[in-house]
Amino acid sequence: MKFSQIIAALGDEVTGCSLDEGSLDEGSLDEGSLDEGSGATSAVGGELELTELAAIQSATKTALSYVEGPKFAEYIETTQAGALILPPDEAIQQKAQARSIPWISVKNPRLVFARAIALFYKPYRQPPGIHPTAVVDPSACIGENVAIGPNAVIQPNVRIGDQVCIHPNVVVYPGAIIGSNTELHACCVIHERSHIGENCIIHSGAVIGSEGFGFVPTAEGWEKMNQSGIVVIEDGVEIGCNTTVDRPAVGETRVGRNTKIDNLVHIAHGCTIGEAVAMAAQVGIAGGVTVGKRVILAGQVGIANQANIGDGAIASAKAGIHHDVPAGETVSGMPAIPHKVYLRAAILFRRLPEMAKAIKDLQKAMAENPPLKGSSKE
Amino acid sequence: MKFSQIIAALGDEVTGCSLDEGSLDEGSLDEGSLDEGSGATSAVGGELELTELAAIQSATKTALSYVEGPKFAEYIETTQAGALILPPDEAIQQKAQARSIPWISVKNPRLVFARAIALFYKPYRQPPGIHPTAVVDPSACIGENVAIGPNAVIQPNVRIGDQVCIHPNVVVYPGAIIGSNTELHACCVIHERSHIGENCIIHSGAVIGSEGFGFVPTAEGWEKMNQSGIVVIEDGVEIGCNTTVDRPAVGETRVGRNTKIDNLVHIAHGCTIGEAVAMAAQVGIAGGVTVGKRVILAGQVGIANQANIGDGAIASAKAGIHHDVPAGETVSGMPAIPHKVYLRAAILFRRLPEMAKAIKDLQKAMAENPPLKGSSKE
Amino acid sequence: MKFSQIIAALGDEVTGCSLDEGSLDEGSLDEGSLDEGSGATSAVGGELELTELAAIQSATKTALSYVEGPKFAEYIETTQAGALILPPDEAIQQKAQARSIPWISVKNPRLVFARAIALFYKPYRQPPGIHPTAVVDPSACIGENVAIGPNAVIQPNVRIGDQVCIHPNVVVYPGAIIGSNTELHACCVIHERSHIGENCIIHSGAVIGSEGFGFVPTAEGWEKMNQSGIVVIEDGVEIGCNTTVDRPAVGETRVGRNTKIDNLVHIAHGCTIGEAVAMAAQVGIAGGVTVGKRVILAGQVGIANQANIGDGAIASAKAGIHHDVPAGETVSGMPAIPHKVYLRAAILFRRLPEMAKAIKDLQKAMAENPPLKGSSKE
Repeated sequence: MKFSQIIAALGDEVTGCSLDEGSLDEGSLDEGSLDEGSGATSAVGGELELTELAAIQSATKTALSYVEGPKFAEYIETTQAGALILPPDEAIQQKAQARSIPWISVKNPRLVFARAIALFYKPYRQPPGIHPTAVVDPSACIGENVAIGPNAVIQPNVRIGDQVCIHPNVVVYPGAIIGSNTELHACCVIHERSHIGENCIIHSGAVIGSEGFGFVPTAEGWEKMNQSGIVVIEDGVEIGCNTTVDRPAVGETRVGRNTKIDNLVHIAHGCTIGEAVAMAAQVGIAGGVTVGKRVILAGQVGIANQANIGDGAIASAKAGIHHDVPAGETVSGMPAIPHKVYLRAAILFRRLPEMAKAIKDLQKAMAENPPLKGSSKE
Repeated sequence: MKFSQIIAALGDEVTGCSLDEGSLDEGSLDEGSLDEGSGATSAVGGELELTELAAIQSATKTALSYVEGPKFAEYIETTQAGALILPPDEAIQQKAQARSIPWISVKNPRLVFARAIALFYKPYRQPPGIHPTAVVDPSACIGENVAIGPNAVIQPNVRIGDQVCIHPNVVVYPGAIIGSNTELHACCVIHERSHIGENCIIHSGAVIGSEGFGFVPTAEGWEKMNQSGIVVIEDGVEIGCNTTVDRPAVGETRVGRNTKIDNLVHIAHGCTIGEAVAMAAQVGIAGGVTVGKRVILAGQVGIANQANIGDGAIASAKAGIHHDVPAGETVSGMPAIPHKVYLRAAILFRRLPEMAKAIKDLQKAMAENPPLKGSSKE
Repeated sequence: MKFSQIIAALGDEVTGCSLDEGSLDEGSLDEGSLDEGSGATSAVGGELELTELAAIQSATKTALSYVEGPKFAEYIETTQAGALILPPDEAIQQKAQARSIPWISVKNPRLVFARAIALFYKPYRQPPGIHPTAVVDPSACIGENVAIGPNAVIQPNVRIGDQVCIHPNVVVYPGAIIGSNTELHACCVIHERSHIGENCIIHSGAVIGSEGFGFVPTAEGWEKMNQSGIVVIEDGVEIGCNTTVDRPAVGETRVGRNTKIDNLVHIAHGCTIGEAVAMAAQVGIAGGVTVGKRVILAGQVGIANQANIGDGAIASAKAGIHHDVPAGETVSGMPAIPHKVYLRAAILFRRLPEMAKAIKDLQKAMAENPPLKGSSKE
């Protein structure tokens, strides 16, 4: 694909490019001229044939790459990339200019790089139709243009929307609802009565709507509490490989619109997860937790029963949250505390031996120079 | 279902109810009168038709709900619940009385609520019979009234007890034994020669009896140690979704009777887990660990190789256990220490900057007022 | 199997045995005499029939067991083992001699024990051939002596090498390559275009090559970044049950030769894992991390985005690594710090209450005996 074609496809986003003159000052590009393959396009390397996208460290001559900001800008000096997507930062652009690497500048290089990938790459989808080895109960209601792969099992009274893509060996338990355009990857399991919204992706091996871990302690041991509730996954949610989302004894576990959940996460029975939340891998959320909108939970974070996490809060990797977190707060550590406090305390943690010695020295000095009146020192 | 019918079904547990007079003093209920739909029943709202169970915060007019103790008692003032299960606490009962909400009181409201769920809800079971798409080796020995779902695979010499329920796409490797009344959920894998007891539930995606992580370091790298042992899961055990229990090089990994294990837990080769243990999600237990009876491990706890955890011990969420824990001890933190010590230390952790400043101030004050004799201060 | 036969099979490794006289001084054994069942063999218990291998604590009369070093040597005094593999440590050998337990000594008892297991135990392999219920796309290229179990699904353009063993219900997405002699256990999923090397073992439920967790924050929420890259698993790698290895947006995620990965591990998009690395269960590695050769990561370790872990580094259980770790360094704690520093600091953590009290006492003493000139104390 020619660089000029890529630029045309991304047109609205492009605010500058490697023109011979003045383009940096003008701050925006005449899209029309690019579409027509004009002199300007040729000046930015528009005829350059690009065959792939690549990270800047490993890019080859025919690869389009990107730099998001100053952190990776040094790689421009050595990259083999054929062309670059740069931020609106003149110093960074000069580096590309100095090496005569064609570039465009955009407000959000990573976002534009993401969109450029879609020009080169189409994710694999199971071909439409029900594979003869799939087992689809006659009572299931199947939409239009649905793909159901080999050995998938669709149990009674399931409802599947249009354009749903079900990969091989998926199991959907009775009464589950799968919204339109949703994709279920191989070997994932959707349990009874779960509602999966539209435009969701459930990755391989994920289990949605299984029984919550509900037991009541008795003198004879643990007595099982039946889990009669359901899981509701709203539209646009992505759930990672081997992640588990449990249903509650009564009521529902809910994951809000556009929330993105990574691999091996556990969400227990009765949680309410807000919209546009991001959870990195191996996060664990105990029963009855409420997570607000746009919350970010880094890897291996744990949240204890019934805690409320306010909108926009952030938890650093491995944070152990035992209490409510106010909206907008960033917390770290175990037990989790405000991030700024944590940073100062964590630095001092490794200096505890010094502190202990200083205390000992002070005690010794004090003992050698006792106060005039008696102290409470042991 | 009428409230009177529910009360009758739970009869033995009910110690009080919303009678017009005197019932709180009497402390127990005449069951017979309830069965007959007598005036007493009517007085407690016995004719009330209840259609579901719900948490008290979200209960509607036709829902039965419960309050376990003072923590959730305030919700009685605003709940829409049609009827309540309450503890033997007169102050809490008065709140329900004040709002004219019919109630019963029982010693353990959560337990009775759990049993009430079973009146409304029957978990889905695969219908009995071997589905034509299941692959069952002719050498497998299958009990009576067994259900084997679509695309399940039962390998040679497997033995399956009566009333076992095997959901779709389960794989049972050769020589495994599955006890009566046990349920294997979709896509779980039971490896060769594993013994699964009676009345167990293995949840979706769990893997039982896979090879332990056994490698011997050599000059050439890691040399694999064959894992010739087995996993034994005793009766009444529940194992969560995507949890893994490995078999050892020799001998066995054992999980004791009535132990309940949540999702995404890892139990390594050669562990011995006692009876009635509870493990929350994402717990990880390294090789050769012994866990006593009735131990409780909260979420994301880790236990290092060969540690012994005494009967009745408790580990708080995220605890990192490197050494033996005495019976009955509660431990927290990483490395895990007695919970009371941890609580005090964790509070001081965030105050480390204050402590460091106090030490500095003392050093400064001491320097300005030096002891008469020399100190060891740096 | 006779003890003499076992010794013969392990011959090269054996450096001493329970001969009547002199063998400990000679330090090596005449193998020929063992093969011939000579007097020497009989003297070491060569006629003894051994039926299994066992840990020393639980070994019975017909079991061969081993002791690696002083730690387990005390068990020699009570073991029922029929014969022992011992280290070249005369004190330990005397213990066996004292109880008349036949033994051999070798440099690395655990390694020799591992090899002895292989004399008694052959791991189960799916029988060769393509099971009629497997769904193999006609465009797939299948090598010789391949076993493909029931209900496995091999999608278009997959290439499978010779002697590959694919267990039931495995799914291989289009274009994946599986190297010779590799084994794929039940319900594992190999995603599109992944390269799996030769002699690998992918355990049950593992997911290789799924989409990385790549989203770009925008004003409207999270925008998906297509994941067009691939996962490359080099030769001799073992990947544990329900472990996930994600592919990146561009480029590759790579796991080096002979690396061994335990259960429930997460390796994010774009990581480069070196050769002969060992990762224990539930390790989580964020995007773009580089892990050097022979690194050891203990259970539940987490590594943050883009960190570089040098060759031979070790991370203790639950370490939380936010920055680069130099080659050969051992780190512990969260945030991870050098292990020696951590050990001292962790001991003092639990003594924080004492330290706080000592500071308070010093402050009080100082207040009662104020410096001649004013201090900065608050």
